[in-house]
Amino acid sequence: MKIEGKEYRTIWFDNDSQSVKIIDQTKLPHQFIIKELKTVKDTINAIKIMQVRGAPLIGGTAAYGMALAVKENNDPNFIKKSSEDLIKSRPTAINLKWAVDRMMKKLSRINSDEVLKFSLKEAKDICDEDEKFCENIGLNGLKIIEEIYNKKKDIVNILTHCNAGWLATINWGTATSPIYHAHKKGIPIHVWVDETRPRNQGANLTSYELNEEEIPNTIIADNTGGILMQRGDVDMCIVGTDRTLSSGDVCNKIGTYLKALAAHDNNIPFYVALPSSTIDWDIKNFKDIPIEKRNSEELSHIEGLDENNDIKKVLIYPKKSKALNLAFDVTPAKYVTGLITEKGVCEASYDALKRMFR
Amino acid sequence: MKIEGKEYRTIWFDNDSQSVKIIDQTKLPHQFIIKELKTVKDTINAIKIMQVRGAPLIGGTAAYGMALAVKENNDPNFIKKSSEDLIKSRPTAINLKWAVDRMMKKLSRINSDEVLKFSLKEAKDICDEDEKFCENIGLNGLKIIEEIYNKKKDIVNILTHCNAGWLATINWGTATSPIYHAHKKGIPIHVWVDETRPRNQGANLTSYELNEEEIPNTIIADNTGGILMQRGDVDMCIVGTDRTLSSGDVCNKIGTYLKALAAHDNNIPFYVALPSSTIDWDIKNFKDIPIEKRNSEELSHIEGLDENNDIKKVLIYPKKSKALNLAFDVTPAKYVTGLITEKGVCEASYDALKRMFR
Repeated sequence: MKIEGKEYRTIWFDNDSQSVKIIDQTKLPHQFIIKELKTVKDTINAIKIMQVRGAPLIGGTAAYGMALAVKENNDPNFIKKSSEDLIKSRPTAINLKWAVDRMMKKLSRINSDEVLKFSLKEAKDICDEDEKFCENIGLNGLKIIEEIYNKKKDIVNILTHCNAGWLATINWGTATSPIYHAHKKGIPIHVWVDETRPRNQGANLTSYELNEEEIPNTIIADNTGGILMQRGDVDMCIVGTDRTLSSGDVCNKIGTYLKALAAHDNNIPFYVALPSSTIDWDIKNFKDIPIEKRNSEELSHIEGLDENNDIKKVLIYPKKSKALNLAFDVTPAKYVTGLITEKGVCEASYDALKRMFR
Repeated sequence: MKIEGKEYRTIWFDNDSQSVKIIDQTKLPHQFIIKELKTVKDTINAIKIMQVRGAPLIGGTAAYGMALAVKENNDPNFIKKSSEDLIKSRPTAINLKWAVDRMMKKLSRINSDEVLKFSLKEAKDICDEDEKFCENIGLNGLKIIEEIYNKKKDIVNILTHCNAGWLATINWGTATSPIYHAHKKGIPIHVWVDETRPRNQGANLTSYELNEEEIPNTIIADNTGGILMQRGDVDMCIVGTDRTLSSGDVCNKIGTYLKALAAHDNNIPFYVALPSSTIDWDIKNFKDIPIEKRNSEELSHIEGLDENNDIKKVLIYPKKSKALNLAFDVTPAKYVTGLITEKGVCEASYDALKRMFR
């Protein structure tokens, strides 16, 4: 998708510098900076400090991280250690482990002369597939938006939480892909963008990328979606997911659950958009999902532009106060109207997911 | 209650300076500043820019504002115009109109020689009554906390939203009064404080005042209450209200509704603490409550302390983005476990409210 009028993907291998390039998402929206990753350690760090984030992009980055590991030192112990460190870099996103496992499987099958070439190709394949999946998610979700538009014959108001935009994937996004496809088809769309505290990825990334694609959008506090739904100002919700259980329970950015409850209370359709790589077939009970606890400084401090356009970090809490920073919550399947996947839209249930993917 | 070890109320008339004194709540938690109000215009401004906020304190301030108007110019036209301007200064808080009407009624009955003395006395009476009401709310709510503690025999975790603390009233607070009373009685309490975007009154005021009273508390993003309730980490919720309809529907700070939905979904008691002056007997349908729309800069900009301990305001949104800032939402009565009032705890219903107050 476009930034300042130019097409980008979120990650690519640059032959000239022999490095992986990413958009540093911690600097958005105030600065657009492309960053070079040269080692697996750079990759782990980029994931940890969230220069890349979003389950699909974390997966793509981890895949390239394995390729960089191979480039550095193709010793089996180093590769194994690198894969373990990568998997530990963010505990909740399921794609991370999926991508690393896929790379390890590939690496085990190729002889050492070609290993770098093939591992770079495998990482690119993972990214290309993700892009294709996201495109298909968009085409499948587009039908739902079209249906609402055909009934309403007026601007379709869509609420989204956090950033499940193209910046969270390789391209198109998951939750935003139906929106981009509808916009390209000429359906009038307006997006309510949840700010998404503590890291404000809704404001910093989703609103930013919608602006760059010229899609009308309004940022709201995370507290606001409820009354907008009560007033009839929301036609549908679409969010992404970091891990979807085979039961249909959805683990996504903290606060998703609250919006799903409000949508349910006001009979507003609540969709979750996901590539099937995000499905966790192992964990049965959502209480067993590891919920990442992050540094409380992400709550107590915030960065922004001061009057001189310099980026400043300020403390916004009382000095004596403590804060707890949980990154995810779980929306039970019963509050999810449907899952928009690369293969089609299905019910959030084990039977429906099994029929579609197994 | 205490700030830096010294007892305060939130508003008082200072005989020496012949002015009304308030704590400037826009400067908290970073600076503790006492501000002088000399005219009704000062009062209106203090309400508008939220140097004073919270329905009961707005009422008390408006009452003193009428006394200052009398002091300035006891012409009936000036008094009438002042009362109208005061009522318009914040559209949602019902106490504002209630306090101004009560002052006007008093003023119409006294002869002009004594009018200043009596209007100052009436304003102080309104404040004293509010303090007494809040104390009684605390004693009534204390019984609920005691009951939970007697069953659990461990720290009682209470979630609150925004600031319905003593800083929102004259003293004690509404939602916090049961907490302060329980703490004074030795019941171990821990409070989950919703940050409460956009103005962060939870972090800036509730956590601040709980710290000053040495009550353990943790600030969380507004998105976090849901998963804490799913995990069993919340024993009860207590919030305040800006306007309670006689139906039991509760209009309070934006985001309250979302927490009530989560509490309902997890069988956690959700209480609303209020003095009866907050009850609106006129409006029947919650859709008729005027919901204040405030400046979007309250969302897009934030103030905090920089590395030199100076207060700095920074822009946290993309420059091209728009934002919508609604200040309140409505929690339907069916999600409210009970109303904690100065007269006792009752169901959130017309019949129960009528039995208790009419």
